[in-house]
Amino acid sequence: MKALVLEEKGRLSLRDFDIPGTLGPADVRIRTHTVGICGSDVHYYTHGKIGHFVVNDPMVLGHEASGTVIEVGAAVTHLAPGDRVCMEPGIPDPTSRAAKLGIYNVDPAVRFWATPPVHGCLTPEVIHPAAFTYKLPEAVSFAEGAMAEPFAIGMQAALRARIQPGDIAVVTGAGPIGMMVALAALAGGCAKVLVADLAQPKLDIIGAYDGIETVNIREKSAAQAVAEMTDGWGADVVFECSGAAPAVLGVPQLARPGGAVVLVGMPVDPVPVDIVGLQAKELRIETVFRYANVYDRAIALMASGKVDLKPLISASLPFEEAIAGFDRAVEARETDVKLQIVMPA
Amino acid sequence: MKALVLEEKGRLSLRDFDIPGTLGPADVRIRTHTVGICGSDVHYYTHGKIGHFVVNDPMVLGHEASGTVIEVGAAVTHLAPGDRVCMEPGIPDPTSRAAKLGIYNVDPAVRFWATPPVHGCLTPEVIHPAAFTYKLPEAVSFAEGAMAEPFAIGMQAALRARIQPGDIAVVTGAGPIGMMVALAALAGGCAKVLVADLAQPKLDIIGAYDGIETVNIREKSAAQAVAEMTDGWGADVVFECSGAAPAVLGVPQLARPGGAVVLVGMPVDPVPVDIVGLQAKELRIETVFRYANVYDRAIALMASGKVDLKPLISASLPFEEAIAGFDRAVEARETDVKLQIVMPA
Amino acid sequence: MKALVLEEKGRLSLRDFDIPGTLGPADVRIRTHTVGICGSDVHYYTHGKIGHFVVNDPMVLGHEASGTVIEVGAAVTHLAPGDRVCMEPGIPDPTSRAAKLGIYNVDPAVRFWATPPVHGCLTPEVIHPAAFTYKLPEAVSFAEGAMAEPFAIGMQAALRARIQPGDIAVVTGAGPIGMMVALAALAGGCAKVLVADLAQPKLDIIGAYDGIETVNIREKSAAQAVAEMTDGWGADVVFECSGAAPAVLGVPQLARPGGAVVLVGMPVDPVPVDIVGLQAKELRIETVFRYANVYDRAIALMASGKVDLKPLISASLPFEEAIAGFDRAVEARETDVKLQIVMPA
Amino acid sequence: MKALVLEEKGRLSLRDFDIPGTLGPADVRIRTHTVGICGSDVHYYTHGKIGHFVVNDPMVLGHEASGTVIEVGAAVTHLAPGDRVCMEPGIPDPTSRAAKLGIYNVDPAVRFWATPPVHGCLTPEVIHPAAFTYKLPEAVSFAEGAMAEPFAIGMQAALRARIQPGDIAVVTGAGPIGMMVALAALAGGCAKVLVADLAQPKLDIIGAYDGIETVNIREKSAAQAVAEMTDGWGADVVFECSGAAPAVLGVPQLARPGGAVVLVGMPVDPVPVDIVGLQAKELRIETVFRYANVYDRAIALMASGKVDLKPLISASLPFEEAIAGFDRAVEARETDVKLQIVMPA
Repeated sequence: MKALVLEEKGRLSLRDFDIPGTLGPADVRIRTHTVGICGSDVHYYTHGKIGHFVVNDPMVLGHEASGTVIEVGAAVTHLAPGDRVCMEPGIPDPTSRAAKLGIYNVDPAVRFWATPPVHGCLTPEVIHPAAFTYKLPEAVSFAEGAMAEPFAIGMQAALRARIQPGDIAVVTGAGPIGMMVALAALAGGCAKVLVADLAQPKLDIIGAYDGIETVNIREKSAAQAVAEMTDGWGADVVFECSGAAPAVLGVPQLARPGGAVVLVGMPVDPVPVDIVGLQAKELRIETVFRYANVYDRAIALMASGKVDLKPLISASLPFEEAIAGFDRAVEARETDVKLQIVMPA
Repeated sequence: MKALVLEEKGRLSLRDFDIPGTLGPADVRIRTHTVGICGSDVHYYTHGKIGHFVVNDPMVLGHEASGTVIEVGAAVTHLAPGDRVCMEPGIPDPTSRAAKLGIYNVDPAVRFWATPPVHGCLTPEVIHPAAFTYKLPEAVSFAEGAMAEPFAIGMQAALRARIQPGDIAVVTGAGPIGMMVALAALAGGCAKVLVADLAQPKLDIIGAYDGIETVNIREKSAAQAVAEMTDGWGADVVFECSGAAPAVLGVPQLARPGGAVVLVGMPVDPVPVDIVGLQAKELRIETVFRYANVYDRAIALMASGKVDLKPLISASLPFEEAIAGFDRAVEARETDVKLQIVMPA
Repeated sequence: MKALVLEEKGRLSLRDFDIPGTLGPADVRIRTHTVGICGSDVHYYTHGKIGHFVVNDPMVLGHEASGTVIEVGAAVTHLAPGDRVCMEPGIPDPTSRAAKLGIYNVDPAVRFWATPPVHGCLTPEVIHPAAFTYKLPEAVSFAEGAMAEPFAIGMQAALRARIQPGDIAVVTGAGPIGMMVALAALAGGCAKVLVADLAQPKLDIIGAYDGIETVNIREKSAAQAVAEMTDGWGADVVFECSGAAPAVLGVPQLARPGGAVVLVGMPVDPVPVDIVGLQAKELRIETVFRYANVYDRAIALMASGKVDLKPLISASLPFEEAIAGFDRAVEARETDVKLQIVMPA
Repeated sequence: MKALVLEEKGRLSLRDFDIPGTLGPADVRIRTHTVGICGSDVHYYTHGKIGHFVVNDPMVLGHEASGTVIEVGAAVTHLAPGDRVCMEPGIPDPTSRAAKLGIYNVDPAVRFWATPPVHGCLTPEVIHPAAFTYKLPEAVSFAEGAMAEPFAIGMQAALRARIQPGDIAVVTGAGPIGMMVALAALAGGCAKVLVADLAQPKLDIIGAYDGIETVNIREKSAAQAVAEMTDGWGADVVFECSGAAPAVLGVPQLARPGGAVVLVGMPVDPVPVDIVGLQAKELRIETVFRYANVYDRAIALMASGKVDLKPLISASLPFEEAIAGFDRAVEARETDVKLQIVMPA
């Protein structure tokens, strides 16, 4: 089968590549339909590694995927050939200590698509555990199905925040993940979400949603915008999605006394934190690592119409143009949120 | 001042009645604008008591109110004459043990409008603590402001449920409170809410909202409808709003394993509960008593447009027709959700 | 191998019986050492069924067990032959929806020792998944290890209660489970635990622990005892462990405003609940179904000396006298808490 | 009345000083008995300020106090002259937004004893709100009553941690607050608490308690000690009580996946935090600011015998030697935990 292979740092090829594997009794075989390009895919392409995950051998990229079930293992009952599905790309050891606790995302043994040495799904067929494969309702397209993965991160952030109905939230950083977080927070119970960034094109995209307001921090500080929105009280929840050191340092100024902070952005190195500032308001700080148990929730929100991710799909390219798609992603145009690859039928 | 006075069980009059009181330093004086008629007002009218609260002396009715601040006490800083406001009708002892814990609604010393012997607000002017008086944003009308009180009960139910983004909820009972709960649950993070009742006109009213589905239990059991909606898994949250014994007994069949139940409806007497059924799914059951700390949240959701309560205001009557309004409320027409009294300008 | 077999209702035999099974890669083989007799074992013996679980074929009894690992599967890393262990008797489908959420106890597919048609462990050797087998520290004897199972129920109740340090708790019902709950609640953060029952011998046993007080409800109501202990405020947590209808009905009188109730006792049929009483204090009610993720916690508390279960082991009988042990358990002597069977070396 | 007055930075006097005030209807007048010396008292003495709180005028020190009620206001019902009590030193505006939420400790309007410009209680008589005055049971001495204040910080940390019964905790930093946290965590449900510091005398004091283990980080890293204690899994809760930058940076290495971190220590300036390390285990981080709603819990744990603070009282000095007591506190002997001043009878 053809696959999009990262041969080594900086070199992609679209070539025949067989991922070894047999269909187990609890697995399904899926014909992939749409695969989104994620920042981590791009980072492996440009840097050859993320942290201590290093691409030492050719690796198939891609982990944001939807498709159609074409074969099911003997023990699979909730899926059947023909089902339209999307796939959760991280597979834990289901009997690990973390998995038993329900936090399988932090199981050290997780195997995650397109994280070396595990191959991704930018190939026409994949085998996947049925337990991590989710049926798409009619109302959810393949393109939206492939958005479930990045949206799942937003959902995880919204879940960890423990949003209370009517909360006011602020999101610092309007990258793709910041946008997902903003939409998950809004659908997840917030009355209003303020998104802060310095890139106006991004703010224009996310600000077009009802219930989301934006502030360009070149013009007004996030702290001032939050104070105006909340009569000086502060936001119930602060989602830090930029990973930028000044944003992290300023977090205590955005939150209300007793509020919550969710750290979603990932600063490469340790950054200074104003601990006394956090303490003075007795803030709770949550962190996010991928997601667990959110795919069904994410799909339900898309199916009910509470979340519309289609405006965030900037372009769809055929599989044959996948390399061009990655090169466009490397450009990081401010008007691009999500690029998707559509596999051959 | 004129007031709507419940002279005794079954007899209302619109007559001069002065509620004693002076403006304290932390109080505001409010010209009332709109007052909703609540089921409890009606119940005092028809029965002369609710539980051990008995109307022994003439009592002014009304506790769902909005108005305009006309005077503020010396220590009041966050309100000024001219502010449009709505009022939280229960005033706790702020240093009681419950109030210190933040659960001032269960402070036994709470004084609540139109709960004997405390007078209500169906009179042109009231004095109220500023701390329990909330400014209405421009986007929220007086009519909506007077809906904050019943909606607050829905909010309290949604808060106690600890909704997680994307939850599927079911509401049993489509009375005014059931409707408020459904809307609060939906705005508060649920992907979908199923409302079950046997009165089709009520289901038609609430079913007109996006995201709310209905089932007439004369045609299909709530359990079956939930099973269909959730592939047999069950609802994440069950809001029991009917107070009907069969609904209470059937609650375990509606919930998913590990789900939550919120008991909002108030059965007059103890009713049978299927404890082993609750245990087999290890359900969490929450109860609701009025509300605490939800007015600002309720107003934020109305202001942001996430909750539109206007379709639930069935009729507005001038103060002079208040008694007719109460008599219409006694009829309990299935197409009436909320009747409101508008005070003279 | 010899096993204690429930041939049919009312008839036990100690005879050769081979439980089919092979050692999988994630399994361990254990030589059983001590097995406690549980009320459910006794109930199957005397009634032949519990609810819809019916003993249709001869079944080996026993599910409270400790022993020594004698062989490990190829994939097992955290256990080795010679390890002293205790075993969690319920095995879920680890990829079920409930198991993924971390609430594997409510997975409908759980296979539980000595729950028909699954055989128990009153036999010299068993095969068990390593993930549900827990190493005993030196400080914990085999006898105590076999107490981990009933204590796990107490732990689950204590966990579900969400005890806050310094809480005052009351336990209604001083059966073996009530005692386990009381000890778990005390070790789990309560300042004091009041145990209420009408059987004085049981109260004497549990009342001998520091920090546990008792009330004989023949002499004083539980409500009065709680009021005296808490200056009329009520208990932070009420653990209902009797399953008796009057106790369930009276629960609201024991709790403080905003307190919690944990329903541990299992009334056979639906019983009347004072819902308005629960609502007036806005109580949270939790339910318990077996346990999940508590074995390591239970063992840690025994190992650290915070919980001493040895006084609750009323007698130890050799395997050859197992039937006599069951017959003594049927007598339900008020001074017996736990009887244990010790397997041949 | 005589009082211990901080005249200015570095200069104390024991002289006549009348704190203005009249007994309000909700107040009590208390004859102070014992007052502990807190690090913050000492810091005002040596530095004349803490953060933006500056001693501009002579100020009475002391905020850890017990005493006897000698007069009660007209509205006080739960206290009477002769009652032995301890006092919570921070008084919020009870109708502030934070206080209504139950988090009165983060009310910006809190007035706190011996925090400029509010006078403390190192004087023979004080007037205090009855709502923040707590009766001591017979089992709790005046000396212990005056320990309720520092212990309350430990309690707040234990509450914010949301300890689950049987948790393993680690405390970094064995100062007086670290010791209080360790004891609160242990009584509050932990199976074991490991305390890490580099001062052996302090470790010897806290390590003398059952259930508390210690590690001298000059000899072994906290990370290694935790790994050994938990088979490499990590601690359920990490209480960072040192405020030292290296300890804060190393926090992620101490916690288990999905664990909690409570930041109690207060680094003067922002310090580097390993955010990616926190995220990789999806840790929850809580912060602590003084305490709210914990005095009754703290007293209950002392009264029941679960917490014994007496070994932490290093010396008691008569009021006349108060200045010498402060000078000894300035020395910061490693064997001193708490010094107390006993007022004249």
